[in-house]
Amino acid sequence: MPILQPIVNLAELLYQKGITDVIVSPGSRSAPLTLAVARHPKLRVRVIADERSAGFIALGLAQQRIVNGQPKPVAIICTSGSAVYNLAPAVAEAYFQEIPLVLLTADRPREWVQQQDGQTIFQAGIFGSHVKRSYDLPADYSHPDARWYIERSVNEALNLSGLTPLGPVHINVPLREPFYPKEGEHFRYEPVRVIDQVLVTQELPAETWHQLLSEWEGAERKLIAVGQLPYHPKLTEVLQKISEELAVPVVGEIISNQHQNQLFITQSDTFLSSVAGEDFLEELRPDLLLTCGQSFLARNLKTFLRKYPARQHWHIQPSADRLVDSFQSLTKLIPTDPLYFFGKLFADLDYQRFLQGEEEPEENEYLERWQMADRRAGKLVQETLQPAEPFTEWAAVQTILDAVPPHSVLHLANSMPVRYANLCGIRADQHIAVSANRGTSGIDGCLSTAVGAALATDQLVTLFIGDVAFFYDRNALWNSYVPANLRIVLFNNQGGHIFRMIDGPAQQPELETYFETEQPLTGRTTAEEAGIGYRSSHGRAELQLALADFFTPGSKARLLEVFTDKRVNATAFQQYKDKVKRLFGGV
Amino acid sequence: MPILQPIVNLAELLYQKGITDVIVSPGSRSAPLTLAVARHPKLRVRVIADERSAGFIALGLAQQRIVNGQPKPVAIICTSGSAVYNLAPAVAEAYFQEIPLVLLTADRPREWVQQQDGQTIFQAGIFGSHVKRSYDLPADYSHPDARWYIERSVNEALNLSGLTPLGPVHINVPLREPFYPKEGEHFRYEPVRVIDQVLVTQELPAETWHQLLSEWEGAERKLIAVGQLPYHPKLTEVLQKISEELAVPVVGEIISNQHQNQLFITQSDTFLSSVAGEDFLEELRPDLLLTCGQSFLARNLKTFLRKYPARQHWHIQPSADRLVDSFQSLTKLIPTDPLYFFGKLFADLDYQRFLQGEEEPEENEYLERWQMADRRAGKLVQETLQPAEPFTEWAAVQTILDAVPPHSVLHLANSMPVRYANLCGIRADQHIAVSANRGTSGIDGCLSTAVGAALATDQLVTLFIGDVAFFYDRNALWNSYVPANLRIVLFNNQGGHIFRMIDGPAQQPELETYFETEQPLTGRTTAEEAGIGYRSSHGRAELQLALADFFTPGSKARLLEVFTDKRVNATAFQQYKDKVKRLFGGV
Repeated sequence: MPILQPIVNLAELLYQKGITDVIVSPGSRSAPLTLAVARHPKLRVRVIADERSAGFIALGLAQQRIVNGQPKPVAIICTSGSAVYNLAPAVAEAYFQEIPLVLLTADRPREWVQQQDGQTIFQAGIFGSHVKRSYDLPADYSHPDARWYIERSVNEALNLSGLTPLGPVHINVPLREPFYPKEGEHFRYEPVRVIDQVLVTQELPAETWHQLLSEWEGAERKLIAVGQLPYHPKLTEVLQKISEELAVPVVGEIISNQHQNQLFITQSDTFLSSVAGEDFLEELRPDLLLTCGQSFLARNLKTFLRKYPARQHWHIQPSADRLVDSFQSLTKLIPTDPLYFFGKLFADLDYQRFLQGEEEPEENEYLERWQMADRRAGKLVQETLQPAEPFTEWAAVQTILDAVPPHSVLHLANSMPVRYANLCGIRADQHIAVSANRGTSGIDGCLSTAVGAALATDQLVTLFIGDVAFFYDRNALWNSYVPANLRIVLFNNQGGHIFRMIDGPAQQPELETYFETEQPLTGRTTAEEAGIGYRSSHGRAELQLALADFFTPGSKARLLEVFTDKRVNATAFQQYKDKVKRLFGGV
Repeated sequence: MPILQPIVNLAELLYQKGITDVIVSPGSRSAPLTLAVARHPKLRVRVIADERSAGFIALGLAQQRIVNGQPKPVAIICTSGSAVYNLAPAVAEAYFQEIPLVLLTADRPREWVQQQDGQTIFQAGIFGSHVKRSYDLPADYSHPDARWYIERSVNEALNLSGLTPLGPVHINVPLREPFYPKEGEHFRYEPVRVIDQVLVTQELPAETWHQLLSEWEGAERKLIAVGQLPYHPKLTEVLQKISEELAVPVVGEIISNQHQNQLFITQSDTFLSSVAGEDFLEELRPDLLLTCGQSFLARNLKTFLRKYPARQHWHIQPSADRLVDSFQSLTKLIPTDPLYFFGKLFADLDYQRFLQGEEEPEENEYLERWQMADRRAGKLVQETLQPAEPFTEWAAVQTILDAVPPHSVLHLANSMPVRYANLCGIRADQHIAVSANRGTSGIDGCLSTAVGAALATDQLVTLFIGDVAFFYDRNALWNSYVPANLRIVLFNNQGGHIFRMIDGPAQQPELETYFETEQPLTGRTTAEEAGIGYRSSHGRAELQLALADFFTPGSKARLLEVFTDKRVNATAFQQYKDKVKRLFGGV
């Protein structure tokens, strides 16, 4: 057996398990892994020098495959040493956002750790609790048991990454020299043993189901709140029917992908403001709260659901291994797929209503209260952004959101862009799939993630990103793969603007130096260096001009830099908050 | 007690323990820590947006303080979430290079972990074995025991970081709101309880010492090999005396800071080449090998010492807690300071020789063999680099090394620059202090480390760095602190040139795409964006011209970009290897 055959087999097993994309960062220790995937006829391998960016590009690829409805893990290969640690930010994001990644980290054999040899750190289990499991392969393959261990471990790891909850798995691969095949030595992609894991569905027994239905019927005010979920039109359709026919308010933030139609509640960050009146909020309190999805974005919504807790709170999530009690009111975990649950819920209740001869949609004062608040909040926001008002970053976000082409993908970087976009909302008829790194909510890889997503779809991928996040991650554009379907909207206000927008730091004398931390760069040179299109705008008219052909297809990616004045932005935002207080505030 | 008082006390304790420098990355969760250090009248706080760069800038500061002879930890503050993981590459380097850092990571209180709240990951113990110890402070301070725990833990952490072996410590700081003081609330830096840790020296008992001396006397061929050590003229002086008076060869690579004089062996990477003849190498084999310092750089030296192991190998290192057996020949760990050990060794042996009436330096064929090989290798290198030969990156390194001003600091980035510089060597009369990140030998933070070092000294700090390492870490220049005493020499060969220089990848058809990975950027725009001086050279004459005033003091940092042709470099390097084979090769 050629010395590298177990590594060659590993590449074949990746392919057999449905993996098609591999991101590689160059290295010598990792050369056997690199060559094994590079020479594989079916694997698509891309080379990214900066491992931090490589990790997030892989994450973006895998994230978009979920949106495409074809979830499968993306593999990452890096060399030994601190290279591995540079993947860690993306690994943490993947863990909490439930994105499947397979981390193949080359290592020195165990006996060389802490022997002052180069690029050798403590790699076994290095990602701690931020991977679903960590495997440490043997460095010696001569014993058949060692080869059996590699074979079954890699099978298990690849199965695990793709099982709900999806997530990253780590396979640490200690390698001895020689790393390179001899002249004339060819890799043979032999048949490998594939251990399949049969999928099961998690269904609710009839007895449990009837109990749930009777509790549902017994609750007066029912509220459905949807956390972050990948774009999923079928689920949206079911939730819409529930809201319409059964008169249940469905609250979704922009990252829930339950967008604005006549029903859904999308303006909650405005009308659930902390300045809202207690009576008003009390009237919105649910008896029974149903949630699904991952994290919620806005503090206002979270605070409301904690301060006015439901008597019963059911959370529907496919995995049963953890209790996520974000609103401190959880009473029941329903470990099943939300589409199955809500689909069955609607079907059964609709059938009951049919049996009872009820044909008109239910009416419900509670739903009307939520919808009324939502409409008033939406109107307030549109007034805030109207052309007669000073031009702000928020207004720019609304203008560009309106122009994003239908049936495309929108990435919202953390810090202000995702918040502004959430305050605006997206029209359901735009059919836009929204993604955001809300697993850890870091700014560290938002640009790389969007690059990765654009590599996984032919649709246009638009990223809204602030200047600090953009430059932090500008190595995302330092590779030869930046695809033509990427559109970057860079909101440049010369610093960490969010600190000026929130109450605490804005009042400190340290605001500018220690929080906002002004930065002078513009995206022009970065765009030029990356060989992508560039345009900029300094106001409403310029923005409209720039947008005229920004989204048209072209042969290369484009960056639109939107300059605004941070003080104007802050003043306008304060005025918005004052209006919220007048409209929804207590006595 | 104001709610933030324990955090304010923490800042005061940093100061009381001798810490003066704090690197902060902006964040809201970390605001109490940021404000506590920013408002402290004696702490010097710098704000760096990219945590990965922040970590390495702190490392460079702390590293340079060791070179300055005043080691003290540098503190780092970052916010919760993936921000923390971005510090990890610098933490691993600090651990293995033994650089004191204090990592203060803001966190959500424990109960919010895995509750889908923003910027919340598993932070307790996140750096694994890459810190000397990890502390997880309580989030609630109301009970006096909790305040006592914070007080003694922080005392212990700060002591530990500064004790040999120096290294990073992690203090995880869960924080509850409010993060910001109320209007009119002032911070009071009250006296805090300081728990001193008295320093002890580790000396050898007389009996042990006499045993060592008798073993020393009994060994025919004695060899001293010095691994990476900070610049330390007193140790160099002692080793020089030992070499001179006692006729013992002292082998030092460039990172050992034992530079070229008439005695030291600095060309070992050339004459210990794997192609060298067995008889020749056998004659260089030591009976007794003494080593001190951290890692060795060149594979040739390491392979020689493993293949021709000493009968006895003593390693002198201050810490007793680990056996580093890099050459697989260790027989004795001597846990004491190398300066103490070699100073006492020389003094005792010199006194014995005085008593025995020996006044002339000893003569020793073994020493002469090493010195002869060193001289021949040095001559070969100089021939390779002479002006009649094609201009290469290596020749550029030699030219610039000759021009680096005396009594300055030289940083050598990983991959080719540190290897080229080691092949050249540095003249002892230049009094240049060499630093390099050889703890993990990553390319990931070399530029940031040099920026940090330049902040800690008034001397000129010159960095030699390749293009991949430079752009990987270009956020090092994305801050307002890049000091005027920094000189960056960027060797741009448009990719990971090292893979073309080593045998394995150079022979693979995947070389250019999957290893070298061509990159098109030049440093000009990065320099312009950072507001630092820029010049470039494409050949010998242009380089000489550019060097004319590159090192003169000025009001801002400067970058010199040296372009070379990777194919010319590779060909010349192959010719050098052929010459080595002719000169030192076996039959």
